[in-house]
Amino acid sequence: MRQKPTLKIIAKELDVSVSTVSKALRDSKEISDETKEKVRAFAKLYNYKPNNIALSLKNKKTKTLGVIIPEIVHHFFTTVISGIEDYANSHGYNVIVGLSNESFDKEVINLEMLANGSIDGFIISVAKETLALKDYHHLFETIDQGIPIVMFDRVLDEIICDKIVVDDIATSRKAVQKLIDSGAKKVGIITTEDYVSVGRLRTKGYVEALQFNNINLDENLILKIEDNNKPQDELLHLETQIKNYLKHNEIDAIFAVNELYAITAMKAARELGYSIPQDIQFVGFTDGVLSKHAFPPLTTVSQHGKAMGSQAAKLLINRLESTDETEDENYKTVVVETDIIERETTLNSNES
Amino acid sequence: MRQKPTLKIIAKELDVSVSTVSKALRDSKEISDETKEKVRAFAKLYNYKPNNIALSLKNKKTKTLGVIIPEIVHHFFTTVISGIEDYANSHGYNVIVGLSNESFDKEVINLEMLANGSIDGFIISVAKETLALKDYHHLFETIDQGIPIVMFDRVLDEIICDKIVVDDIATSRKAVQKLIDSGAKKVGIITTEDYVSVGRLRTKGYVEALQFNNINLDENLILKIEDNNKPQDELLHLETQIKNYLKHNEIDAIFAVNELYAITAMKAARELGYSIPQDIQFVGFTDGVLSKHAFPPLTTVSQHGKAMGSQAAKLLINRLESTDETEDENYKTVVVETDIIERETTLNSNES
Repeated sequence: MRQKPTLKIIAKELDVSVSTVSKALRDSKEISDETKEKVRAFAKLYNYKPNNIALSLKNKKTKTLGVIIPEIVHHFFTTVISGIEDYANSHGYNVIVGLSNESFDKEVINLEMLANGSIDGFIISVAKETLALKDYHHLFETIDQGIPIVMFDRVLDEIICDKIVVDDIATSRKAVQKLIDSGAKKVGIITTEDYVSVGRLRTKGYVEALQFNNINLDENLILKIEDNNKPQDELLHLETQIKNYLKHNEIDAIFAVNELYAITAMKAARELGYSIPQDIQFVGFTDGVLSKHAFPPLTTVSQHGKAMGSQAAKLLINRLESTDETEDENYKTVVVETDIIERETTLNSNES
Repeated sequence: MRQKPTLKIIAKELDVSVSTVSKALRDSKEISDETKEKVRAFAKLYNYKPNNIALSLKNKKTKTLGVIIPEIVHHFFTTVISGIEDYANSHGYNVIVGLSNESFDKEVINLEMLANGSIDGFIISVAKETLALKDYHHLFETIDQGIPIVMFDRVLDEIICDKIVVDDIATSRKAVQKLIDSGAKKVGIITTEDYVSVGRLRTKGYVEALQFNNINLDENLILKIEDNNKPQDELLHLETQIKNYLKHNEIDAIFAVNELYAITAMKAARELGYSIPQDIQFVGFTDGVLSKHAFPPLTTVSQHGKAMGSQAAKLLINRLESTDETEDENYKTVVVETDIIERETTLNSNES
């Protein structure tokens, strides 16, 4: 059976990365002439033409938006997609979704595949591996091809395009302020290691909120969970780490940078005999199904995934349908507002 | 800006359904000659050629699988996708996902769009509306075009293709048997109205398990929740309905056909002063994040979404890569085994 060779097959045969093949075919300066020659020879052998369909479809619109997300078993990303769908559908656009699974190669392959005439523009949240590698050539080149991109959540300063973000620092400040206003004296944070940007930014917001309230920072109250990418092990590990942290510190409130950390910490606190919220209060970040159905229901920061999705679709469709040639320069960054959803893990605010 | 007119635009202009346009363009006998003429005239006016790219790409393989699911904010479907991804990626295939949002029109449009040369085959779970309309022409025609389909979860007897299913009746019997073996005398079921096939089949399994154990059926112990498609209202409604049901019946165990019903019933039972599992035991269907992190953690039936996904991808890729011409006739239905995951809402079995 004849197959259309993909970037991946060529990469495998030459024992180079997908990124190298992609760059070589686009005549990138980063790639040696020798490698370019080899890649071109293979591409020719296989009759592989990047974006051959796209060329034939030039100016032909598909009325389809391509969405590329890092993960699908993740409430936040699925709510963003549902927001994109709602807006796109009511404006005559269809949506197809590709997954990077946090892999750089998969992100490059997905962009390449969908840019082949299947979609008019992209909405994308980049993979962790892409952030780590800092290799953004696939995004630059997609934009150069004339295909607009809207980035959300994990956005890059280096890419000039429309963006939808949450202000992580301001939102964290708001969450910690809520705990302080509700009478907490010793507020801890359960966060990620610093290399995960959302964890780093949310920790920064926590520190700023303490400063604003003239509370001295106690480094022991900052618990950084290691993300070892092994879901089951991680879970055990997580519980043990949090229990030790609670045992060795006097804490009357916890801000957790995601709902899993918050739920796990609530379980550990219950097992240690704490009453929630009388002895210890909790606020989580990201309002998912876990928060809503937790026992007791968890007070959280809502990231408004649906709103982010519909804003992203709106920016992209406006750009696709704009007839204003000067629009090109006029990229927007929309900061989506967050709210505190008060449930039963916090006390009433003293100030209210 | 020139746009490629979609089925939807033609349907809108002629004030007929997408299904009618799709059928007319394929010269279906169900459509009057007059309508066909009008549709063709519009299609010609817009220079619309169904599957024009597909024709030009004949025999060209994309190494991409198209997945069409009814809903994305749904743990089961996202785990199925992650199973499809794992298998497909490790076999050199990419995956793109389209959503029907339970709408027949969107399902037709997604199939049409992706069949235009973007994918080699489909994995699909049909929309509720398609089931209600019993209009399957888009599936028949996709298969006729030579594009293989694998159906999962919501499958149709009328479509001859590879299928992946869970045996709902046998699984429910297993769940109810677990409760009886753990000492329950009055087992109730919280289920859906009968028009939802999974609810109907799971209720059938419940009834069979009682019969098998010579327990008389008490119709009052079957609570059928009305699905009114208004999430927030539904939730309140759900809690009230379940509380009334618990108040007016002596029940010492509940089998719930999904985890939301189970979690809501546990909350209601706690509020009525029951101890879980001493006074009342619970088993849920579908093992999602809610079950794992419930208080106490919920004993559930695992549907093994990941296994279903990887089985579906395997069947599809085998068919795509098969060189055996007789394979065509040899469609398989794979029944994925389910397990009971014992957590803390059930007592130890008497028999264990």
